[in-house]
Amino acid sequence: MSQSFAFRLVATAGAARAGEMTTPHGIVHTPAFMPVGTQAAVKGVHHDDVRAAGTEILLANTYHLMLRPSAERVAALGGLHAFMRWPYPIITDSGGFQVMSLAPLRQITENGVVFRSHLDGALVDLTPERAVEVQALLGSDIAMQLDECVKLPAERREIERAMRLSLRWAERCKRAFETAPKGRALFGIVQGGDDLNLRQESLRALGDIGFDGYALGGLAVGETQDVMLNVVAEIAPALPSARPRYLMGVGTPADILDAIARGIDMFDCVLPTRNGRHGLAFTRFGPINLKNAHHAGDPRPLDAQSGCPAARDFSRAYLHHLFRSGEALGGTLLSIINLYYYQELVAEARAAIAADRYADYVAQTKEQWLAKRDLHGS
Amino acid sequence: MSQSFAFRLVATAGAARAGEMTTPHGIVHTPAFMPVGTQAAVKGVHHDDVRAAGTEILLANTYHLMLRPSAERVAALGGLHAFMRWPYPIITDSGGFQVMSLAPLRQITENGVVFRSHLDGALVDLTPERAVEVQALLGSDIAMQLDECVKLPAERREIERAMRLSLRWAERCKRAFETAPKGRALFGIVQGGDDLNLRQESLRALGDIGFDGYALGGLAVGETQDVMLNVVAEIAPALPSARPRYLMGVGTPADILDAIARGIDMFDCVLPTRNGRHGLAFTRFGPINLKNAHHAGDPRPLDAQSGCPAARDFSRAYLHHLFRSGEALGGTLLSIINLYYYQELVAEARAAIAADRYADYVAQTKEQWLAKRDLHGS
Repeated sequence: MSQSFAFRLVATAGAARAGEMTTPHGIVHTPAFMPVGTQAAVKGVHHDDVRAAGTEILLANTYHLMLRPSAERVAALGGLHAFMRWPYPIITDSGGFQVMSLAPLRQITENGVVFRSHLDGALVDLTPERAVEVQALLGSDIAMQLDECVKLPAERREIERAMRLSLRWAERCKRAFETAPKGRALFGIVQGGDDLNLRQESLRALGDIGFDGYALGGLAVGETQDVMLNVVAEIAPALPSARPRYLMGVGTPADILDAIARGIDMFDCVLPTRNGRHGLAFTRFGPINLKNAHHAGDPRPLDAQSGCPAARDFSRAYLHHLFRSGEALGGTLLSIINLYYYQELVAEARAAIAADRYADYVAQTKEQWLAKRDLHGS
Repeated sequence: MSQSFAFRLVATAGAARAGEMTTPHGIVHTPAFMPVGTQAAVKGVHHDDVRAAGTEILLANTYHLMLRPSAERVAALGGLHAFMRWPYPIITDSGGFQVMSLAPLRQITENGVVFRSHLDGALVDLTPERAVEVQALLGSDIAMQLDECVKLPAERREIERAMRLSLRWAERCKRAFETAPKGRALFGIVQGGDDLNLRQESLRALGDIGFDGYALGGLAVGETQDVMLNVVAEIAPALPSARPRYLMGVGTPADILDAIARGIDMFDCVLPTRNGRHGLAFTRFGPINLKNAHHAGDPRPLDAQSGCPAARDFSRAYLHHLFRSGEALGGTLLSIINLYYYQELVAEARAAIAADRYADYVAQTKEQWLAKRDLHGS
């Protein structure tokens, strides 16, 4: 608990970066994939398995935790690390994104956002200052500023309004964060939708305020992958190179590889666990849908060379059977398998960047997804 | 895979027995608790956790597996041990009990039972010979005879008819079993409801046929605990002492302790996992309902002295939060905690029998369930 937040670049390969992020709860190697523990739990997966998969940092959702069990209760129970028994780094979002997507009634003003809890209808006030306070109570190693995220496509005027409001909130978050316990980090969030000029303006203003790291927000919210990667390619290299860069809510294995190539260091996404629960495995041979009937008699494991015991030891036939039978263990095993795959993907990316062969690594990985599809089925 | 089925008594304490059962897949120490892996999976719990809890033998349900994925498919995939990756002993039921409780249409004749699959409506024929064949295809270390189980209370005439039919089926199962792979075991099932004379007649006839072990069936099917324990007390000691004795489908921790005291060696029950999924923990301090609101702020673990990491490491507040939030991890953790508790209970029973202090052990255990209730809440 003694180390203060810090980041150092270890290697680069083109725009791709490998780094080391120090936090009060330990070191995170970047590029890093952060599984989502929405309600202080990664859905269906024991923390020990999340860790064993290679996870160095978890994301938890402020919106959910402030409503239940409440930030004050978590603080009284020793903070999120103690509460959920995850002694490693934790990042929290600000709650803003999920207010927009989950709360039944919400009103955005200059002051912040007022919304009704989707749980009990209670009226809740989320200001930039409160967002920082809640994250401090949770004890997260990395807190995010409150921002307003606009779904794409949207009018330029609407994107611009939300971007400027997010900037003013960024300033207030930064001030509020000065009273938070020392050593933790606060990240600013670049907004501006698919408008590169607005994005540039946002990132310059955030850089002037000064944050411990910078996120790209408002992506993976309805736009095509091309649009997203174009924004990332233009904006990531313009961010301060001495700070970590986080692409929020992204994505598929391909998204992650392509965004790393464009200079992103951190990712969070529910895909490995959500798709796992629905029967889809991410593997070196591309995605494999275990619900398909042709797996019913297949004695092969998903990947005999995987670092994940479940991917090596259980047959496709057995995994198929679990899904056909409605056994929750199927979703749990595939979530674990997918978490291992995502962590393996970024671990290999780190090694490839260190060896200055990142482009080759991406090309080989994508080729393997396609080339073995016929052999391994989907 | 080389050892043939065998049983030897290690110690007795009153009517209570400690023993060692050898099977083709390893040794089982008795009294033994056998978790239920209905569809080749213990609901919500990874096999590694089932094993770590101290489980030496699993029960799988023939009815479910013969319908999906089918006994022939399991056999083609190497048998149940390979299919589910559980290399330790497995016992299967005959399918009869669940035909009676789950199949929408069923007709019992001298030949067997014909029923419609609850999955696809297909007409299925389950004869004594087929029940033995299916269990041989599954590769179970211990197979059960097909029997007819009558719900209590029932007319004596009905109980008697089912008991005599079960005896004739027992003979046919024994004959069919002669062609099964060597080394495995077949158990007979004593029927006769709550009628001790019928039970005595059943057990004598079964003993004449000769089985590797004997089960008490048709209990825990609606009668009171007193009635059940009375049947056990009268019948268990009359069973061949050189063979293991199995009380099917029982029960609560108290049921198990009381039945061990009356000479039972083996138990199976869904309670630890079913109750776990519903928020109820079995502990040294009695049952604790984690859904109760008064756990919300309780930082204490369920049992700091437990052999189960989840019982030691997670706070009651966190477990409560998982149930309140609908996180499946809560049910998984409590299922694991309960499996550890059940296995701890029978392990301590074995030690107490070996030390000839079983009655004391039961008295102390029950006292602790009650005495600490005020302190630990329920």
